[in-house]
Amino acid sequence: MAGSNLGTIFKITTWGESHGKGVGVVIDGCPAGLPLCEADIQKFLDRRKPGQSRFSTPRKEADAAEILSGVFDGKTTGTPISILVRNENQHSGDYSEIASYYRPGHADYTFDAKYGFRDYRGGGRSSGRETIGRVAAGAVASKILSGMGVSILTYTRSIGPVTISDERFDRSEISANPLCMPDAAAAKAAQDYLDSCIRNQDSAGGVIECIITGMPAGVGEPVFGKLDARLAGAIFSIGAVKGFEVGAGFEAAQKKGSENNDAFTTDSEGNITKKTNHAGGILGGMSDGDPIIFRAAVKPTPSIARTQQTIRKDGTPIEISIAGRHDPVIVPRAVVVVESMAALTLTDLLLLNMSARV
Amino acid sequence: MAGSNLGTIFKITTWGESHGKGVGVVIDGCPAGLPLCEADIQKFLDRRKPGQSRFSTPRKEADAAEILSGVFDGKTTGTPISILVRNENQHSGDYSEIASYYRPGHADYTFDAKYGFRDYRGGGRSSGRETIGRVAAGAVASKILSGMGVSILTYTRSIGPVTISDERFDRSEISANPLCMPDAAAAKAAQDYLDSCIRNQDSAGGVIECIITGMPAGVGEPVFGKLDARLAGAIFSIGAVKGFEVGAGFEAAQKKGSENNDAFTTDSEGNITKKTNHAGGILGGMSDGDPIIFRAAVKPTPSIARTQQTIRKDGTPIEISIAGRHDPVIVPRAVVVVESMAALTLTDLLLLNMSARV
Amino acid sequence: MAGSNLGTIFKITTWGESHGKGVGVVIDGCPAGLPLCEADIQKFLDRRKPGQSRFSTPRKEADAAEILSGVFDGKTTGTPISILVRNENQHSGDYSEIASYYRPGHADYTFDAKYGFRDYRGGGRSSGRETIGRVAAGAVASKILSGMGVSILTYTRSIGPVTISDERFDRSEISANPLCMPDAAAAKAAQDYLDSCIRNQDSAGGVIECIITGMPAGVGEPVFGKLDARLAGAIFSIGAVKGFEVGAGFEAAQKKGSENNDAFTTDSEGNITKKTNHAGGILGGMSDGDPIIFRAAVKPTPSIARTQQTIRKDGTPIEISIAGRHDPVIVPRAVVVVESMAALTLTDLLLLNMSARV
Amino acid sequence: MAGSNLGTIFKITTWGESHGKGVGVVIDGCPAGLPLCEADIQKFLDRRKPGQSRFSTPRKEADAAEILSGVFDGKTTGTPISILVRNENQHSGDYSEIASYYRPGHADYTFDAKYGFRDYRGGGRSSGRETIGRVAAGAVASKILSGMGVSILTYTRSIGPVTISDERFDRSEISANPLCMPDAAAAKAAQDYLDSCIRNQDSAGGVIECIITGMPAGVGEPVFGKLDARLAGAIFSIGAVKGFEVGAGFEAAQKKGSENNDAFTTDSEGNITKKTNHAGGILGGMSDGDPIIFRAAVKPTPSIARTQQTIRKDGTPIEISIAGRHDPVIVPRAVVVVESMAALTLTDLLLLNMSARV
Repeated sequence: MAGSNLGTIFKITTWGESHGKGVGVVIDGCPAGLPLCEADIQKFLDRRKPGQSRFSTPRKEADAAEILSGVFDGKTTGTPISILVRNENQHSGDYSEIASYYRPGHADYTFDAKYGFRDYRGGGRSSGRETIGRVAAGAVASKILSGMGVSILTYTRSIGPVTISDERFDRSEISANPLCMPDAAAAKAAQDYLDSCIRNQDSAGGVIECIITGMPAGVGEPVFGKLDARLAGAIFSIGAVKGFEVGAGFEAAQKKGSENNDAFTTDSEGNITKKTNHAGGILGGMSDGDPIIFRAAVKPTPSIARTQQTIRKDGTPIEISIAGRHDPVIVPRAVVVVESMAALTLTDLLLLNMSARV
Repeated sequence: MAGSNLGTIFKITTWGESHGKGVGVVIDGCPAGLPLCEADIQKFLDRRKPGQSRFSTPRKEADAAEILSGVFDGKTTGTPISILVRNENQHSGDYSEIASYYRPGHADYTFDAKYGFRDYRGGGRSSGRETIGRVAAGAVASKILSGMGVSILTYTRSIGPVTISDERFDRSEISANPLCMPDAAAAKAAQDYLDSCIRNQDSAGGVIECIITGMPAGVGEPVFGKLDARLAGAIFSIGAVKGFEVGAGFEAAQKKGSENNDAFTTDSEGNITKKTNHAGGILGGMSDGDPIIFRAAVKPTPSIARTQQTIRKDGTPIEISIAGRHDPVIVPRAVVVVESMAALTLTDLLLLNMSARV
Repeated sequence: MAGSNLGTIFKITTWGESHGKGVGVVIDGCPAGLPLCEADIQKFLDRRKPGQSRFSTPRKEADAAEILSGVFDGKTTGTPISILVRNENQHSGDYSEIASYYRPGHADYTFDAKYGFRDYRGGGRSSGRETIGRVAAGAVASKILSGMGVSILTYTRSIGPVTISDERFDRSEISANPLCMPDAAAAKAAQDYLDSCIRNQDSAGGVIECIITGMPAGVGEPVFGKLDARLAGAIFSIGAVKGFEVGAGFEAAQKKGSENNDAFTTDSEGNITKKTNHAGGILGGMSDGDPIIFRAAVKPTPSIARTQQTIRKDGTPIEISIAGRHDPVIVPRAVVVVESMAALTLTDLLLLNMSARV
Repeated sequence: MAGSNLGTIFKITTWGESHGKGVGVVIDGCPAGLPLCEADIQKFLDRRKPGQSRFSTPRKEADAAEILSGVFDGKTTGTPISILVRNENQHSGDYSEIASYYRPGHADYTFDAKYGFRDYRGGGRSSGRETIGRVAAGAVASKILSGMGVSILTYTRSIGPVTISDERFDRSEISANPLCMPDAAAAKAAQDYLDSCIRNQDSAGGVIECIITGMPAGVGEPVFGKLDARLAGAIFSIGAVKGFEVGAGFEAAQKKGSENNDAFTTDSEGNITKKTNHAGGILGGMSDGDPIIFRAAVKPTPSIARTQQTIRKDGTPIEISIAGRHDPVIVPRAVVVVESMAALTLTDLLLLNMSARV
């Protein structure tokens, strides 16, 4: 076990189940002196809050963060920061039936296989609510990065078959449409697609893209602590992620060396940079000073109202229809989760990098 | 720093540079009582040895493994297993020129940026020789897995634009052609493609696929220690990997929930299984008992003889042509590296799983 | 930083300051299926609660534990167990003066030196309240150990100059007197000594002893994970501990080999045991099946009402008299903290030991 | 398992058995740019080499260190430093008898209990030769510390009943007598005592003291990463250590607060210091800028020629007399081991401290 810890210096431990008393995180290793208040965290949590459009569950969850420790006189003290979000909207009664069978695409069976039983209420520990602790910690990491000149832009690249156009890329659109797509036309088309999914009692997936600027070169640890390896592990720890790629990603596998190599050059200020960025800002597992670019593939929400075949715990077949308030797509709400995981990874590696040289 | 360690219980530490005295690995936490000899390790190392076809560097490297500790009377003792492979074929003189500039697609610049200088001989720590320690440790992990009924099949899925056909899939072909492709026709086409790359002083990439059978359900640790997250981190720590996906992978992002969900069912012996396996054998970060399937995208070899633009350390432009003995494609040699990283990850998680229940 | 985590499999993270909103712990890696309720934890917390005799601070602290996660239907689920104790009795106003100077024997100066400032209210993170998280986690570990047949007896061996007599050792006395001494006469003498300390506005220290029975042989990891090394680190992480010894301890340094060696023998049931136990139940860093015995030296409470010399933050000299409600001796309240740290260490090593052999 | 790793940033992994092919260490996380050569390491190894006086085993062991990686152009590169010492003087034939019984005071029985069998040749992994890896790594850590202005003085405080006099303390004596005692008269008396032990086929223990100067204030991590806790764990991981104390140590338990508290003051340059140093330079688990002082109790060598009672593996009683070349006292040779473990601990905590503040 012991899988709820992440990081070497900037180390987080998340806890909590969907329908327990609450969820939260303890951040150990946050440097002292960082200005921090609950509003900093709330701003991030609000980005993953449900009920903000017809494309997310209409459940009402205030998800109000309370900082319990580690902050004094408005600044971090260097001691662990414990953040608590109480669960408010549990209806445990709704879940008695779910206890008896295994939902397709969910972790019901694997939890039983591992532990012998499970907290079946709302998915328990495998619920999307588990990401609240990550996002709260990600808000803190983002403040550190921001102070170091690093910024992270994360958005929806595609939903189902609808992908943004690089020509129409408009950063301001990300917060202007409910799908976090930087392309108004694609966002419109994706909404139409989602409406048809909803009508068909079905769900959709998508791809999230993340661009990090301002990272100094040399961050990341060869061999197993490579920046891309650490990002891959962090992003793949998000429940619904099924694919991860950096820079040219899977396309690089089809290219020739002469096409994929990025020529080094200098910019107008004499700084070393590259003419292209197929590498996605990472060479040999270390940042090269150019923007770090990665994408994550998110599977369609497994909870659908449509009738599905499955089995009971004893193996007998059963047909189910998952009622209730589920997201037809989780991609837009997952954008801030991806951003948080990136922020946590970068912060830890930046702090580790402080001891790279005597 | 401190990036050369991997694992929680079954923990490896690799060391060594391309042109130093040698490379190696220390395995800490290997259970006692496992039969082990140098031949077990050599078998794995020979799979990554160069010079076995015209598609890999003609360098001659014996890569003979010596077990220095942790084995007594033919069995592991539970204490650290130190494995040493001496470097034999160094010509440090060849590399003086390389010290002065930054090769595109290589880690030269990022090493300098991080540490202030680098061991420039043959790529130093970022050389492909660094994977020898991984493969030696992977051989040990594979013996443990084998004893637990777990087997791993790894092969080349595609090289450049040439992909195997699932209809022609022939397991025996993997060791029958120099490209490790389980499809004789694709292997032929890929060889033609590589020959044209060689003629054009260029290189190719590809995709490696891995299928693990026999894993009991429930292995992997929620939340950050998910089986897929740990695999993603391990596979992405291999130098040239730019993408990673599990099961349906990036395609899942385009599917609907009703298409992507795998219905649970029971097999003829009453064991729980799934009608399809889009999940790739992992649900909620834990093995579900079905085959675990993942793919890794490998970029084209950055070292090409063709003329390239780059800069010297001081920023002045330079045209280079990388002479020497380089692999036109590293995918076939990387197959055993991917398999080793998978074996290491699975072994560690299987040992961790022993304490899942009281 | 990152110093608030302990353990490899059974891993705890404590958080909280004396006068923040609360203190607590997250336990990651607790096996599933352990019966657990808040009363189990409360029983341990009550043993460290102040105000139970005239020898501890008269502060009233309910210290009620709330389990926020990781328990379902009365059993642990294998997911993180988060335990919260709200602080109730803060009077932050009392501490404004303390902010300006450095109390002798306290961590005021070192916190400032490390972090640039500190949460000066009641000692902040270095307060004795920090141990609440340890004790709550220790209660959980003790339940696991108990189920494995391991039991821990911890008591006060000495207070100031008063030491228990081995001849008068009476286990039932430990809970019968306020000083947790297994010797009524010594407890009486120690109370007289403490009364004189109180009259003189002074404080006392003492020695705590711990005896663990029922540990199977072979637990503990050579080399750096030795059972005694892990115990030493865990016990020395308790604020006021200045010495630690196992078995014959410092006396062993004066003995001859022929005196200190323990002859192996078999007991009436044929089990391997030793004729003597100078080793304290640990050989080569692993339990040998005999009782594990260690002692911890606890310094006198640094907060005393008597006038002391010290300096302000700017270096100017000042005379202080620490008013308020302080323990004249913390040894009796620290007994359960020592026991908890032992329980946490043993539990982690027992779980690690599950993968010692294939 | 997994007990052969130590450290968070400056991380070492030792390996090797007494009579295997060799022993060694891999140091991961050493900052780049540190001048380092084999002579730096040899100097430390020579301090623990046997056969330097009649008070250590007459075995001849060259113990020549070979640096296999991580150093280029005379400086550390930031990548793992692998150091190998080949074993030369193995006579495995000598040890066949030992395989059948359990030596008192040794780890024979506990190794069998843990792993099912053991490498019985010369103690295997529990041999004193295991410390070679620690000392080699300690030499590297000491170079880093030295560059930061930190120096470590370690010596024998007592052997058997003979203790140095603080009045006669003479630093130059440490390297002038074979017992590393900073007091010529005590060294003479101790030699007489050891001669009588040898005559009686017996052995002696002793106490090692270590004084570290030049540490900046604020190093060490509350709560579990306290400087004293980390030192305690590191020192107690040395085979024969049975006790550890800091500053006033066990004596503090008998003192009153008014006696034990150290008044803060300023020195002639206005720096904050303390009038006394009962704390041993550590407050709240962080260095306070004053000398760090600790002591370790070392038990008498368990291998003695005198006849001893013990049992065979099957439980039958046997009388043994351990022939061969054993140290009548290991304290002088352990001095550099203690110093190395201190250096490793301090270095890791100094590097961790770099990220204490934003």
